[in-house]
Amino acid sequence: MKLSDKVINRLTLYHNILIGYIEKGVSYISSPKIAALLDIDASQVRKDLKLLNNDGICKVGYPVEELKKSIEKFMGFVKTKEAFIVGAGNLGMALAKYDNFELYGFTIKALFDNDPLKVGVSINNKQVFHISNLDDMAKHSNVQIAILTVPRQAAQKIADFLVNAGIKYIWNFSPCVIEVPPAIRVWNENLIGNFLQFTINHEQ
Amino acid sequence: MKLSDKVINRLTLYHNILIGYIEKGVSYISSPKIAALLDIDASQVRKDLKLLNNDGICKVGYPVEELKKSIEKFMGFVKTKEAFIVGAGNLGMALAKYDNFELYGFTIKALFDNDPLKVGVSINNKQVFHISNLDDMAKHSNVQIAILTVPRQAAQKIADFLVNAGIKYIWNFSPCVIEVPPAIRVWNENLIGNFLQFTINHEQ
Repeated sequence: MKLSDKVINRLTLYHNILIGYIEKGVSYISSPKIAALLDIDASQVRKDLKLLNNDGICKVGYPVEELKKSIEKFMGFVKTKEAFIVGAGNLGMALAKYDNFELYGFTIKALFDNDPLKVGVSINNKQVFHISNLDDMAKHSNVQIAILTVPRQAAQKIADFLVNAGIKYIWNFSPCVIEVPPAIRVWNENLIGNFLQFTINHEQ
Repeated sequence: MKLSDKVINRLTLYHNILIGYIEKGVSYISSPKIAALLDIDASQVRKDLKLLNNDGICKVGYPVEELKKSIEKFMGFVKTKEAFIVGAGNLGMALAKYDNFELYGFTIKALFDNDPLKVGVSINNKQVFHISNLDDMAKHSNVQIAILTVPRQAAQKIADFLVNAGIKYIWNFSPCVIEVPPAIRVWNENLIGNFLQFTINHEQ
């Protein structure tokens, strides 16, 4: 089954909410409550959760722990994906510290940079290596995903290098569009576009 | 006119491509070229650019400079929006350094943190203030947007504080869903959801 981007986005947000409820020790959550937190329709929430074969209990709501596990199973979080972060500046460091990734079966194996001052540093138990080690490490680890957090000016050159090293998926945080061979998948994390969607459609 | 999220996203990516072409000194770009860079249909590109009343010249393509200006005008980048970054950790610092925001009329006025070691530091000509100054600075500057980059555990408490300070729009990068009064708009920057859209639908 192919899931739409909007469904994936909402299921991940429901999952975030459930984690918060588990932390607070709350056992049940209703669809209107989830809907209110995300400013969407409760019928939409119920429709999404039907995909998981999960039904709420009348007047009590959905059991929080079970629903969290259903989402994890449904979205395949169990299958671990491994990635390198390329560019150990502030953004790369922030992503290396983002523990939430691991909840989704997404593991950062190492960071890479060309700055000798950064090489050897550890962030959140992940080490920064010199970029010249990437080729060898990619080939010996089967890591196929690279998170690109280098400055705009370096992005294309580093993307070419990643492709040569056997990287198949690039999650591009650099604010520029990179050119890659057709077999390589690029996801442009278009931060400013995301925000403009928000501001343009909710005009101040 | 209400623009769909997908149109806004694509127009911002076209804009990124055009900036790269201007830097390289290229004067024209064709719709198949834009389409190939983003792995979408050329007919989609032409349809989007029709919205701007911009026509390509047969066999030459679109004039890069003009097209860039049309997108800026169409999307209202000229109207400046001002924001505070709340949380001067790696992610807050990365966003403060993200010069591309200014291209879209989006200006970061200041950062806030509760760590005394960070207060007084400047990043990209933007100063870090103690969080206790935010209320006063929000009221004296008419800044209505806050970019929330605090740890998950602090997010709700800081969101409450921002609402009391008169902030109307919260761009939430913390991996948790925050509760706010109905008049406040929240955009959840769901990084992991964005990435799952990419990996789930392009199965490895």
